[in-house]
Amino acid sequence: MSTSTAIRRKSRSKVSLLRVENGRVSRRSDQVATEEPLEIRLEAKGGKAGERKTVAVTMRTPGHDFELALGFLFAEGVIGSREEVARAVYCTNAGEPQQYNIVNVELRREGLPELGGLDRHFFTSSACGVCGKSGLENLQQRCAPIVSGLRVSAGVLRGLPQSLRKGQKLFDSTGGLHAAALFDAEGNLLALREDVGRHNALDKLIGLALMEGRLPLSECMVLVSGRASYELAQKAVAAGVPVLAAVSAPSSLAVEVAEAFGLTLVGFLRESFNVYSGLERIDL
Amino acid sequence: MSTSTAIRRKSRSKVSLLRVENGRVSRRSDQVATEEPLEIRLEAKGGKAGERKTVAVTMRTPGHDFELALGFLFAEGVIGSREEVARAVYCTNAGEPQQYNIVNVELRREGLPELGGLDRHFFTSSACGVCGKSGLENLQQRCAPIVSGLRVSAGVLRGLPQSLRKGQKLFDSTGGLHAAALFDAEGNLLALREDVGRHNALDKLIGLALMEGRLPLSECMVLVSGRASYELAQKAVAAGVPVLAAVSAPSSLAVEVAEAFGLTLVGFLRESFNVYSGLERIDL
Repeated sequence: MSTSTAIRRKSRSKVSLLRVENGRVSRRSDQVATEEPLEIRLEAKGGKAGERKTVAVTMRTPGHDFELALGFLFAEGVIGSREEVARAVYCTNAGEPQQYNIVNVELRREGLPELGGLDRHFFTSSACGVCGKSGLENLQQRCAPIVSGLRVSAGVLRGLPQSLRKGQKLFDSTGGLHAAALFDAEGNLLALREDVGRHNALDKLIGLALMEGRLPLSECMVLVSGRASYELAQKAVAAGVPVLAAVSAPSSLAVEVAEAFGLTLVGFLRESFNVYSGLERIDL
Repeated sequence: MSTSTAIRRKSRSKVSLLRVENGRVSRRSDQVATEEPLEIRLEAKGGKAGERKTVAVTMRTPGHDFELALGFLFAEGVIGSREEVARAVYCTNAGEPQQYNIVNVELRREGLPELGGLDRHFFTSSACGVCGKSGLENLQQRCAPIVSGLRVSAGVLRGLPQSLRKGQKLFDSTGGLHAAALFDAEGNLLALREDVGRHNALDKLIGLALMEGRLPLSECMVLVSGRASYELAQKAVAAGVPVLAAVSAPSSLAVEVAEAFGLTLVGFLRESFNVYSGLERIDL
């Protein structure tokens, strides 16, 4: 798999604003998190007509776009390994003004894979049965329960939020980004990604692991800066991560996914914390 | 327009968890925000085969589902008024176990409207030109600049977060929900909605206004509990809201939308605050 490494879009954008403080108005210049759409396209070997397809458009913060595209495709079950990917490149059609908001992922196989399994679309396929359960069943068809010997001490867990916060460079200057970070069992920060979309930040981590051949992430933990939703829990399961921790609350469906797949789910992680599933991995 | 009013799914779910505090583990029972998919289906008059279509599936917190469906359809430009809607009902196909996660919106017109304008999908329609600009241009085709004589004092603005916080009943018990609230120019809370998805909370407010015949909301302000993204800014514009305030940071594209449509955009709203666009509506 080869990827082009250019990052042409900025993660931060400069804006001018008026600060209202103690009844006074002052003109300021500040930075906000850039939010732009990224289109992810899949292309079969040779890329003949009809063998190229847009599989997603996500509002994201530019940077690590190939990780995002590949992580998304892996987490959604469209690709299973980096060996399936010939290359990931920005769309470079001549004459188009915006070419860094489209990533083409070229596969080694001929013909496009079945895309019916894309989770976001899956819910719509059953005649009248949209429910969390159908999502879980779909996930169970393509993901196995977590297998991992990882154990982590409560003390290490408590220290993760501080490490995360230190690594949030874009948040420091914009105050407006989610973060997801990968840690080993000793609490060492392995990688951190930021994005306006919480799911994108995690997709970027998973894409990085894919590109480095480190999937499944069975010896790692993920900490997210906000809440733990269904989407984050299912992505953690897809990547084989045994511990998902969140600084804030989980949703009902995140708890269900964690229980169904043997994922350790930690919420409200501060000096004290809640364990919703998988306490056996935590040394107290 | 008629809507059935049953709310059969719970907004909160009970979970058992283990609380780890000062090295001790205690078993607790707590509530988390329910997260379940809602499928929004559009049906032409008569509802013949081929005239029913799923337009969206969103992960949402149950409650105010008709508001959510109608607000989404209005904000995305699929429907223009409540008069276009014959009724909104839960799917009641016999024998299906989960019938409260699908809302059928039945239109008065024959045949389904053109759905190409759905913003989420729009970005994919241009050959190789995905960018924030194409989103703005699409929005400009269907939304006019904000027209409103509303003025608000800085003091009233400063008081909004406290009113919002007081109204967040689900947040109180779960710690895991976004909120969006509608205020008049004097800072009176008119309505508040909570959801695991920030865009859903605002869609619910817009749907409520649609059902009550109060659109455009040219004399109202909206405050959101988190950050202001592109999606929230475009929904505010679609509903004709002149002031969008956020407790946290805006994104670059939210600022661009606000400037393009004459929306007053306030961020980091606390004792002091930032005005990114439309200061003329604020009395200091």
